Parts: sequence; structure tokens; C-alpha cells
Amino acid sequence: MSLLKQKTYQPLTNESAVELALGLNIFAENAKLSCKEIGDGNLNLVFHLVDEKDRKSIIIKQALPYAKVVGESWPLTLKRAKIEADALKFFGQIAPNYVPKVFFTDDVLAVTVMEDLSHLLIARTGFIKGETYPLIAKHLGEYLAKTLFFTSDYGLSPSEKKEQVQRFINPELCKITEDLIFTDPFFDAETNDFEDGLRTGVESLWQDEELKFHVNILKKSFLTETEVLLHGDLHTGSVFADNSETKVIDPEFAFYGPAGFDIGQVFANLLFQVVVNIEKRDLFINHIETVWNVFEDQFTQLWNSENKEAYAKSSTFLNYILTKFFEDSLGFAGCELIRRTIGLAHVADLDGIKDEQTRIAAKQKALDLGKILIKQRKVIKNLDAFIASVKEVL
Amino acid sequence: MSLLKQKTYQPLTNESAVELALGLNIFAENAKLSCKEIGDGNLNLVFHLVDEKDRKSIIIKQALPYAKVVGESWPLTLKRAKIEADALKFFGQIAPNYVPKVFFTDDVLAVTVMEDLSHLLIARTGFIKGETYPLIAKHLGEYLAKTLFFTSDYGLSPSEKKEQVQRFINPELCKITEDLIFTDPFFDAETNDFEDGLRTGVESLWQDEELKFHVNILKKSFLTETEVLLHGDLHTGSVFADNSETKVIDPEFAFYGPAGFDIGQVFANLLFQVVVNIEKRDLFINHIETVWNVFEDQFTQLWNSENKEAYAKSSTFLNYILTKFFEDSLGFAGCELIRRTIGLAHVADLDGIKDEQTRIAAKQKALDLGKILIKQRKVIKNLDAFIASVKEVL
Repeated sequence: MSLLKQKTYQPLTNESAVELALGLNIFAENAKLSCKEIGDGNLNLVFHLVDEKDRKSIIIKQALPYAKVVGESWPLTLKRAKIEADALKFFGQIAPNYVPKVFFTDDVLAVTVMEDLSHLLIARTGFIKGETYPLIAKHLGEYLAKTLFFTSDYGLSPSEKKEQVQRFINPELCKITEDLIFTDPFFDAETNDFEDGLRTGVESLWQDEELKFHVNILKKSFLTETEVLLHGDLHTGSVFADNSETKVIDPEFAFYGPAGFDIGQVFANLLFQVVVNIEKRDLFINHIETVWNVFEDQFTQLWNSENKEAYAKSSTFLNYILTKFFEDSLGFAGCELIRRTIGLAHVADLDGIKDEQTRIAAKQKALDLGKILIKQRKVIKNLDAFIASVKEVL
Repeated sequence: MSLLKQKTYQPLTNESAVELALGLNIFAENAKLSCKEIGDGNLNLVFHLVDEKDRKSIIIKQALPYAKVVGESWPLTLKRAKIEADALKFFGQIAPNYVPKVFFTDDVLAVTVMEDLSHLLIARTGFIKGETYPLIAKHLGEYLAKTLFFTSDYGLSPSEKKEQVQRFINPELCKITEDLIFTDPFFDAETNDFEDGLRTGVESLWQDEELKFHVNILKKSFLTETEVLLHGDLHTGSVFADNSETKVIDPEFAFYGPAGFDIGQVFANLLFQVVVNIEKRDLFINHIETVWNVFEDQFTQLWNSENKEAYAKSSTFLNYILTKFFEDSLGFAGCELIRRTIGLAHVADLDGIKDEQTRIAAKQKALDLGKILIKQRKVIKNLDAFIASVKEVL
């Protein structure tokens, strides 16, 4: 078909998205498709295509050659669409229940055609509306156990692992994380964005040399530790859910990094609900506990049954690995709490609080909790100690 | 010329090596070249070509598609010749005084044509003959400081660093190290090779779960930490020297790994002389001290003057990095001491000792020292404590 034969990039319109879809043998040949651009991300167009007659629908996601959040001034290559498509397929093999199905990808158009998940809600939006999704924590724990084990040196052969590291080198998207999570929030950088009421707290953070020392260590880990293939942006806005299903979407930040980064982002984004959702606080604390317990349990099972490493039988080494992952998770969670409060990209959990005093107080708690998790990550020895630290700040 | 036009791999002969050399405009057109294969490595052919008339000479190194040490049963792709050539060029830009000049490379023939260093001696051979090379330690310290800084996240931009990581993914040669340094010596593996007199010591090592736990951690570091572009095989057989010059050759094992690995191999291979060369023991201890002191001093200077990282001004973080490098170096040195004593590839420093009792005693000391360095690497806080540990074993 013409669009695909053309083989030069162009942003899709509703019309060309329909044209593309009709060429893929997903819908009936003479289907009448409705199409709507529903993207609310910063980097992509997202088209929702529906054939009302056959009750079929799909999503077409297309990468934009710039980041919308900063206008066209932040150019990004389209290679990330290939990384996202490759990651969706790889994670889909490992954890098919928790990843959308991919029907078609095209590297030139930077397009991925995939399962429509619009019967689900973005978890962050659901949480803010009052949903709690009883299975989401179990599902995320299982997703994390599977993806972090089967992409590691313990779940892949040495050569397969290195091939994946090479395939998922992702300089541009990693740079965004390096700047926006590990650097800018800790300096008086232009990208930062915070309310006047937080200025005192923010300035004390910029002067906290101990904190910056620890963030530097976490940044080094992010820059140099190719432990597992990370989703790389696993906040609650990258998760679709309802009461029975959980799907992890948007792995365009995927690259080989430290396992604790994905776990930490899940922790932090559940912690925003712990901070703001006083009524359901215990429930979200319970979600965090479940994520870790299910992760630890299933990772241990995979370690014992599927391990490709000669030293695998050592339970002390498994314990070493799980301790490292846990410590790293706390540190990365702390960075996420801080950057989502004062950095470029905020979360609606906090920004949506109408009352200014309540909002500022919640944000200050997020900052305080972030600092403690970063500095104390090796002192907080287990889940109970972690929850105790959270409760102390609240 | 015919050989290069042909574009299929074939092992060079003396005749075709001369033919290749004459096509490169290095020698006069009608030069009469003598050629000799002088390789004593396991993986390559090395031709020495001389034009007696013009007093010019070069080396042609060609990768073999298998490892000679285990016959043709251990196939290796020729891609490593490209990695070696790329590494020689990259290291040559960073530390030109300590790396042979490259005149020509060809990926299909897996050939590198380079500076002839035959006026120098392989350092291990020189040491065994009684040489001490007064400048070698200072030169290696400087080589390490420059290569380990300028290939790191602190000496390269984030995107350049990631590009280099991708370029130097080296699964086959890394697998050799993973097996022969980090795995086989610690299990009753077929590749191991040790004298009967060492059996008791070796078996106690195989049963030492604490030791294996620490080796597993070091192996994980080797598998996952992309700190710097390593030489990857920096023993004294990869160094040419005389009293004024030092050249580091053969970086075919180059890949992004933990900085302490290169430093540790230098430590370990100097330690073999400390163990066997009783007369010059203090001198080789002094070499080890000089390597670290020069490395630390020059790395610190580069850190302060050339750092590309926002957090660079933190001297606590530099201290953290240097401490980590030092600890890692001790651990990796310990692994090298053990594998060169009981693993597949030995060193002439130990094997060359004629008297059996002396030889077994020296080898047992290498094993004991290896175990201590691996287990105590976080306890041995500085160079003095390191040297004290060495002296205690001796």
C-alpha cells in the first residue's frame, strides 16, 4: 500500500492511520473504521481505530521526531520506536499476560500496531478516581520477576544477554532520564518546575551534599550496570488496569540497566497514592508490600528452576542479589519521588490536589520521603523497615 | 592487490604476508622483505616483516578462526580482529606513548598491520630473565589512568560512551574470561590443570563457599558493569618493555567492564614476580605501589580537569570511585592469581621454577594470596594494607 511503499517518515493523520490499518489484514477489507488521536504522552501520536460492525479495534502508536512537552526544540530520533517495538515483543514473550499484543511494526514510519486496551484505564487515572485494582500489585510483582529474571545473566546465555544489551543501547531516551531524574532536580536547573511554597525545601535539597553524593552513586549505577532489560519508565501512567487485568505499555525507554530502577519506579508511583490518598493509605501500602513479596517469591522460584549460571545453587548469592535489588529500588524510588515533585514532569496525584496548603504539604512529604529513601537505602534492611520509614514521614 | 581484492578469509603464509605488506606503501616498491611467523599466543598468527636495506620492519597480526591452545575444537569468529584493531586505535588516541601504531586493518582477512616492537621484550619474559624495567610501573599507571578515565562516563559524553559500549560488545572473548577466570578454577572442571602436589589446596578451594560467593560477585561485576573500555587481558605477556619504553599490545579481549579488572591483572602479574623472585621482591612490590600511586594521581588530575559529569566537583564521589576501583582490583587480582596457577592458562613465572618443592610452595602461595585478596578486598583499605597482606602470605 502506498503509505508503506513510500518509505519516508511522515506523521500520520487520522486518514493515513486508517489507510495503514486497512492494509494489514486485521480488519475486513471493506471495513468502515473510525479513528481518533488519543495520545496524552509527550513523545508520540496514538491513534485508536474501531470497526463498530465487527467490534474490532486496534491502537497505532507513532513516534514523533521531537518531545511535545518542550515543543519541537527537543529533537529525538525515531529509533526509539524500534526499541519500543523490540521491547514489547521481547517482554511479550516473557510475560504475555502483562504486555499488549503487537500486530505490526514499521521502522521507517516509527509505527507499532497493537492490541487496543481501551477497556482498561491508565492506573494513575484510576487511582485518582478512587479505584484500587485488587490484582495490580500481584501482577506487577510477577511482571517484574519474569522480565528482570529472563533478561538477566541468570536467565539468558552469556552471548544472548550481550546481544540484547547491544540491541537495546538507547542513548537518547537514557539521556532524558539521566538529566531529568538524576541531575536537574538536584541543581538549580532550568527544567525544574516547582511551586513557590516548596522553595525552602528545594533549596535545602540542592545544598544537601550527602544526598547528592548518593544520587551520584545511583546515577553511576544507571549509567553502568547492565543487569536486566528495563522497561525504563514504569510509572503508573505506563500501566493499564482494571479489576482483573494489568498491562504494561510504552517501553520506549527500554535499555539494559539496574533491576532496582523498574521496581523503584513502581514503589515511588504507588507511594504518591500513599502520600495523597489518606483514606486508602493502608491499601496502597499493602500494594507496595505485595509487589515486593510477589517479585521476591517468583524471582526466587525462577532463580532455582531456570538459572543458567554455574554458581546458581548458592542461596547466599541469591540473597546478595535480592538485597542489592531492594536497596537500589529504594534509592531509585527516592529519585522518582523528588523529580516528579520538583522536576520537569509532574504527576497528577500531587498536582491534582486542589487545596494549596494540602498540596504543598503532600509535595514536601514526597521530597522528605525521597531524601530518606536515597540516603538510608542500605540502612532500611527489609520491607517492614521500608514501610516503617514511610509511616514515619507521614 | 589480489589478496585484498579476493575478500574471503584465508590464513596468511609467509609469502602472502609479504604480498600484503608490499601493497601497503609502507616499504619501497621493490623492497626485499624477509618474513617470519613469530606468534606464541593461542589465537593468532603474527608475522614479522623486515626490509634489511631500509631498516624498516612491521608486524602483521592475523586472527585465527579457532584457539590454538585447544586445537581447532574451540572455534572463534574473526570479529575479534576488528575489536582488537578498533581498541588499538582508540587506546592509541588516548595514550599514544603506550600503544603500538596501527598502519592498516582489514576486517575480512582479520588482519592488523602495526608498528614492529621487536626491539622490546615481552615484560614477563624480561622479568624472568632478570630485567626489572625501572619505568614500566609508572608507564602502566599512566596508561591505566588515561584509558580508564577517557573511556568512562566521566571522560566521554553520554552518547559517545554508549556508542563505544555497543561497538565493543565482545561475547566470545568475554566467555573465555568468564569460564577460565571466574568459573572453572573454582569447580572440578575439565579445563583445570594443576600438579598433584597442589591437589589438597585446590580441593579446599573448591569447598570454600565463602570464596565462591565472593568470586560470584566479581563475576557479576565483570558481566554487568560497563564502567570503562578494558584491555581485558592486561597481563605481563601483553606488555612490551625495555628500560625506557612500555607498549601495551593485544587488546582483543577489549570490552566495557569494571575498571578494576585491568588494574587487578597488572597487580596479579607483578605479584607472580613478588612470589617467585625473592632477590628482587622489594623492587616488584615497589612496582605495584608505583602502578597504583601513578594511576590514582593521574586519574585524579583527569577527574578534576576533564570531567564531563555535573556532579564531578564532589571529592567524596571521586574517593568513592577510587575506593571501588581499588577493592575491585584486589578481587580481580585474586582471581587471576588462582586461575594462572590451577586453570587452563599458566604463567612461566611459576611453571618455570625447576625445583618441584620450590615450585609447589610458590604456587600454593599464589593460591593463598588469591584467596585472601578476593575475600578481604573490602577489608584491605589501602595500598599499605595490601602490601602488608602480601608480605604476611610470603
